[in-house]
Amino acid sequence: MVDTLLTRLEELYPEMVELRRLLHSEPELSFHEVKTPKLIADYLEGLGVEVKRDVGGRGVVGYIRGQKPGKTVALRADFDALPIEEETGLPFASKHRGVMHACGHDGHTATLLVLAKALVEYRDQLTGTVVLIHQFAEELAPGGAIEMIKDGCLDGVDAVYGTHLWSTMPLGTIGYRQGPIMAAADRFELVIHGRGGHGAIPHETVDSIAVASSVVMQLQQIVSRNIDPLKSAVISIGSFHAGGAFNVIADSAEIVGTVRTFDPAIQELIIGRIDQITKGICDAMGATYSLNYQKGYPAVVNDSFETSRFIEVAKTIQTEGLVREMDPVMGGEDFSYYLQHVPGTFFFTGAGNHEKGIIYPHHHPKFDFDEQAMLVAAKCLGKAAIDFLERSETETSRVQEHLI
Amino acid sequence: MVDTLLTRLEELYPEMVELRRLLHSEPELSFHEVKTPKLIADYLEGLGVEVKRDVGGRGVVGYIRGQKPGKTVALRADFDALPIEEETGLPFASKHRGVMHACGHDGHTATLLVLAKALVEYRDQLTGTVVLIHQFAEELAPGGAIEMIKDGCLDGVDAVYGTHLWSTMPLGTIGYRQGPIMAAADRFELVIHGRGGHGAIPHETVDSIAVASSVVMQLQQIVSRNIDPLKSAVISIGSFHAGGAFNVIADSAEIVGTVRTFDPAIQELIIGRIDQITKGICDAMGATYSLNYQKGYPAVVNDSFETSRFIEVAKTIQTEGLVREMDPVMGGEDFSYYLQHVPGTFFFTGAGNHEKGIIYPHHHPKFDFDEQAMLVAAKCLGKAAIDFLERSETETSRVQEHLI
Amino acid sequence: MVDTLLTRLEELYPEMVELRRLLHSEPELSFHEVKTPKLIADYLEGLGVEVKRDVGGRGVVGYIRGQKPGKTVALRADFDALPIEEETGLPFASKHRGVMHACGHDGHTATLLVLAKALVEYRDQLTGTVVLIHQFAEELAPGGAIEMIKDGCLDGVDAVYGTHLWSTMPLGTIGYRQGPIMAAADRFELVIHGRGGHGAIPHETVDSIAVASSVVMQLQQIVSRNIDPLKSAVISIGSFHAGGAFNVIADSAEIVGTVRTFDPAIQELIIGRIDQITKGICDAMGATYSLNYQKGYPAVVNDSFETSRFIEVAKTIQTEGLVREMDPVMGGEDFSYYLQHVPGTFFFTGAGNHEKGIIYPHHHPKFDFDEQAMLVAAKCLGKAAIDFLERSETETSRVQEHLI
Amino acid sequence: MVDTLLTRLEELYPEMVELRRLLHSEPELSFHEVKTPKLIADYLEGLGVEVKRDVGGRGVVGYIRGQKPGKTVALRADFDALPIEEETGLPFASKHRGVMHACGHDGHTATLLVLAKALVEYRDQLTGTVVLIHQFAEELAPGGAIEMIKDGCLDGVDAVYGTHLWSTMPLGTIGYRQGPIMAAADRFELVIHGRGGHGAIPHETVDSIAVASSVVMQLQQIVSRNIDPLKSAVISIGSFHAGGAFNVIADSAEIVGTVRTFDPAIQELIIGRIDQITKGICDAMGATYSLNYQKGYPAVVNDSFETSRFIEVAKTIQTEGLVREMDPVMGGEDFSYYLQHVPGTFFFTGAGNHEKGIIYPHHHPKFDFDEQAMLVAAKCLGKAAIDFLERSETETSRVQEHLI
Repeated sequence: MVDTLLTRLEELYPEMVELRRLLHSEPELSFHEVKTPKLIADYLEGLGVEVKRDVGGRGVVGYIRGQKPGKTVALRADFDALPIEEETGLPFASKHRGVMHACGHDGHTATLLVLAKALVEYRDQLTGTVVLIHQFAEELAPGGAIEMIKDGCLDGVDAVYGTHLWSTMPLGTIGYRQGPIMAAADRFELVIHGRGGHGAIPHETVDSIAVASSVVMQLQQIVSRNIDPLKSAVISIGSFHAGGAFNVIADSAEIVGTVRTFDPAIQELIIGRIDQITKGICDAMGATYSLNYQKGYPAVVNDSFETSRFIEVAKTIQTEGLVREMDPVMGGEDFSYYLQHVPGTFFFTGAGNHEKGIIYPHHHPKFDFDEQAMLVAAKCLGKAAIDFLERSETETSRVQEHLI
Repeated sequence: MVDTLLTRLEELYPEMVELRRLLHSEPELSFHEVKTPKLIADYLEGLGVEVKRDVGGRGVVGYIRGQKPGKTVALRADFDALPIEEETGLPFASKHRGVMHACGHDGHTATLLVLAKALVEYRDQLTGTVVLIHQFAEELAPGGAIEMIKDGCLDGVDAVYGTHLWSTMPLGTIGYRQGPIMAAADRFELVIHGRGGHGAIPHETVDSIAVASSVVMQLQQIVSRNIDPLKSAVISIGSFHAGGAFNVIADSAEIVGTVRTFDPAIQELIIGRIDQITKGICDAMGATYSLNYQKGYPAVVNDSFETSRFIEVAKTIQTEGLVREMDPVMGGEDFSYYLQHVPGTFFFTGAGNHEKGIIYPHHHPKFDFDEQAMLVAAKCLGKAAIDFLERSETETSRVQEHLI
Repeated sequence: MVDTLLTRLEELYPEMVELRRLLHSEPELSFHEVKTPKLIADYLEGLGVEVKRDVGGRGVVGYIRGQKPGKTVALRADFDALPIEEETGLPFASKHRGVMHACGHDGHTATLLVLAKALVEYRDQLTGTVVLIHQFAEELAPGGAIEMIKDGCLDGVDAVYGTHLWSTMPLGTIGYRQGPIMAAADRFELVIHGRGGHGAIPHETVDSIAVASSVVMQLQQIVSRNIDPLKSAVISIGSFHAGGAFNVIADSAEIVGTVRTFDPAIQELIIGRIDQITKGICDAMGATYSLNYQKGYPAVVNDSFETSRFIEVAKTIQTEGLVREMDPVMGGEDFSYYLQHVPGTFFFTGAGNHEKGIIYPHHHPKFDFDEQAMLVAAKCLGKAAIDFLERSETETSRVQEHLI
Repeated sequence: MVDTLLTRLEELYPEMVELRRLLHSEPELSFHEVKTPKLIADYLEGLGVEVKRDVGGRGVVGYIRGQKPGKTVALRADFDALPIEEETGLPFASKHRGVMHACGHDGHTATLLVLAKALVEYRDQLTGTVVLIHQFAEELAPGGAIEMIKDGCLDGVDAVYGTHLWSTMPLGTIGYRQGPIMAAADRFELVIHGRGGHGAIPHETVDSIAVASSVVMQLQQIVSRNIDPLKSAVISIGSFHAGGAFNVIADSAEIVGTVRTFDPAIQELIIGRIDQITKGICDAMGATYSLNYQKGYPAVVNDSFETSRFIEVAKTIQTEGLVREMDPVMGGEDFSYYLQHVPGTFFFTGAGNHEKGIIYPHHHPKFDFDEQAMLVAAKCLGKAAIDFLERSETETSRVQEHLI
């Protein structure tokens, strides 16, 4: 019975906390993870789990094979940290200046490691295989997922689940959503090339600041005029830099921005419109430009059926009122790549706690999460995995019956 | 002596007033003048002046040939009225509803007719020929001047003078300027073609009002960014019309405007920029456009030497303080065409009088001018003509001496 | 059994067609309906239905009281036509020039009248009361619903259902949506007061066209900058009119537009932003303004529970694949007012048919709908009403049991 | 006779060159001049000239008192250098890294020193006094002139003359202009304060880049809409800096620009408009701002009468064709302050020479001037000074005669 697994997780909670604090104190930047994957791999091997190291670069994949044959389900946790100087004052704060687990990936990792321990113990009841995907470099595009998938981490996998501890949702809540749950988050750089000169003789120049300002204004019309009002999209300019001297017309202006979408067609439309608008304004003003548009992670699009199943599972772990449909999050996640290959769902595990002062958003120097959330996450992931395997078993049987 | 001419003009002033009031009461629209040119031609013939009628269409040209041979100088007065409903309440107000001498051309005509009378009497002292150019259709492009010139009104003419009675300058003043004194006044129509549709689904339309608003904004940058700050230019949009229903995206938007310049190079630059900007913005937004740019009269550019001479002449008629250099006037005048063919000068004769309530600008339904200004104008034109002929006589003599 | 009702409706379909064609040929404009409400009231009285005339002005309300007591459910159909010149060429086309049933309200009315006939016959099986709301003036704000409600048409009503025949959805489909299904559609007029003057002396004017163009540009930033990207809103300018002469700076500019929202908080935010932006730009440019914002119908927000029930009902009438969740429609409907008072749902009944050439959108001069859609609509409305009454009966019984 | 002075200047030309090259090799930055004023003061004292040191800080003033009493005329030369790394490769190039006489002030100083030597020799023919104003810190606002005037350098002075060697005018030419000859050159900083936040949730921010872009666009309308087209003005934004990360809405944006005007009323109008526009746009968008407007030197406005006299003087030194009216220069000069106190004129002395490769503009690392220009400048300044004193003598005599 799966309940034994849940009970065992509760017993193992102190180890989860211990592991999380250890990881928190030794954060490593994306694409520079060394100690963390070693710790993960060693821990899993210590449990007797079959482990692949250096998957897609720095990833670790573990395989827990059940007593009975069956389907394969993957659970994913990311383990990289951020270039942020920690200001939490916690006793287990980062030992590395300027590097911090400010997004909770330490918690994701501890959750999955201890869940692995419980699942290993549960192996004789397990039908099929659980794949543990410990992913590096989620915070920095192109991310680790894409390389781990190329390197085979999803081979044979039938479904995938993942979660994000979420400090802006109260502890206890579980957030789900059918379809898009996180946005595609892109970056673009636009350099407008005018023709510099003295500020007092503008007619002999092409004023790159005036041109770029027009472009900024006109880009605002994409969302208001070119996007279906029932669809979501954001175009924001984060940086505008041009010129040095007060009395010299700047030769060029650089604007850098982000685009957020849930629908690839909208994304392509926006890329085309940014180019068309900039070209038109530059032509109008005698300027030229270069546009460098870098697509980030695609939108995380949850599978409808798997999400429905997950909702049922979640309601057995928390009371129904705490299992909530949520608005999509405009930030990006490379969990999207896994979902492009196999069905599954990505959910959010509430980890905020006003009473404990856990109120800071992700990526904040004072970010923290309520560690109890790890237990909720572990239960959800564990039970969802077992639910998938057991129900697949039934389906398989049913299929076989039909064949007879 | 020229002083006899000036004295005679003073004596004839009542006739000038009488003629002006007669003309004022019977205004005729540009290109529709019938009675006015007949009155002028009959009057001149009555003086024994050789007259050509229907010059270039509706113009009248008279020739006063002096006793002695010499050069030829032309004086020009225009005689058309405007489509304005008069509100002066004057006893000699317009008899024709919706038509009014609201720019003083009645005064110009009366001035030149009575000056002709005085010059005829002065004929035995006259060296050379005075040509009287009574022009139709100054108010409406393409104007009468261009056709009268084609029809020969400047044939054999060595210099040309003209004036405008000016109600916004005080009576007594004479305004001169070297070089450009009146602007080139052009008109353009711009139609932006978008793609109409329901206001609630903007993404399926191209919003012509949004595009045209961007164009209006961007056209403002021509003067501020593309024109030498030491040069003058104006671009104004006078009309913007688009759409009908509040909830329907307009298919097209029409904007109509004017451009004022003194320098043909600036004028060409602006024409090019209007087209370039509109094309660029339309390309940016997926719209198309049509631009219809109609050049009006070119700038009135006074000859430097003739203007210097005129200043000297003017100072003998009014005290030096009343003879003033003036700023260029941004409005247009087809006197410019005469000056493209022969040297000369165009000046302004102050005709405002606050004490008499003569304060309304030209083209105003209550426009009027102080009739005394006609006397100043007649003296200036008469003396300038004689100055030109007499000085040319000397030059001719001098040249002849050299030849000997 | 409700199936007898459905079968009876099929039998009565020819009468539905006949009634619809009669109504179609005699369209009456909103707030000018005379013959139509008389026809309706007479028809219902002919069935023996208790009728109130002139409800809220021109509305008709009928009451079909079942054999057994119970809850009360209302069904609504609107009956006004549009100021459009019909171009369908149908044999039963409008007899009144410039007036046309171009939105299908003739169909709504015929549907509800014949459904009434069937329900009257079904009276002995009916538990509770069906209220027939025949509404005038849906097409023109402030609409008829608000007045009919004031006049008591919802008194004692526990739930309300309505539908729109929809020519852009294929015949057979039934479109539902939880929550907002139609937008709040508002209208605003903005008059910018500058200071007119000659186009050649802009510095003595306040250029209302330049100011209004800036306002248009800036209003586009509301949707892109001030609205949650996960929420929907539209601001469109449908008309921009200013100025007459090409060379005169316009004294004022008028822009008229529409705002569409689903959320009253977003609506209020937009009203505030339009005012704030216009005030700021006018202050910046020395202009003043007046803003006249007219709220149209609020968003139609379907009740979650009633909609879920309706989906179940609909799936018994059409196959599951034809019962579809739909995107919200950005247009407005005053059915919203009924839903502000009682729970219920508004759904769309597919009425397009490419094979028959029924392809024109609503409000088009060639608009038509497939009359078979009326039968689908009648079945849905009828069965939904009975479903409501019967399930309420159970609930009531259950409540009573509890009371015992 | 003044001709002896001119001849003497020609003889002394080699010393002028020698002094200039010495000064050129030892440039000193504005407000940091030490050796240069000492050299000047020592040189003048060596000639027996009465000298005041440290006038207004670092200025030097010399007094050459003529044999006969009379009026007092001042001649001014500035002596500071620029923070530019010299790239001329001249044998007498700057010995100080990053400091260069890149504007010709070395030439101004050598010119005035050698002219002083010639004037000292001419003292017995001199009627009245010549004041030599050697000014520090012309290149850096607030400049040295204002302090030297406060410290008395113009006390008793009746007229003032100054010149600028000008590498973009050919050697031999002398450029004059009545009225404004150099612009007022101001600087302003505008900081727009929005409210930062994540780029994906713009509705919770005030986007300072969008606001600042609107301000840039709107500021362009000042010149095109608010300035008399017959007047000159420039508003240019030289720098725009905001934001760092691509996905973070910038909290604030800084734009820095320059304003150029010739007319204080236009200058005040522009200051007011910049503030009004920025306030309006910020109010419209929910932002705030701070504007720091620093007036630079006022326009250099030549006295009409003194300029007319100077033209006559100049034509006796160079042939008439080389003495030319010039367009105003949009750059600033603190000679303007002297002209606010006493009449005088500032002229330009052509110092370019294409054949010698002297083609670089002022402030360029390869800037140089044809040293022959110093001789022209010395003759013009010397003869203008004597012309003033001698004509004043006559006037004085005439006045005295009247008194008798």
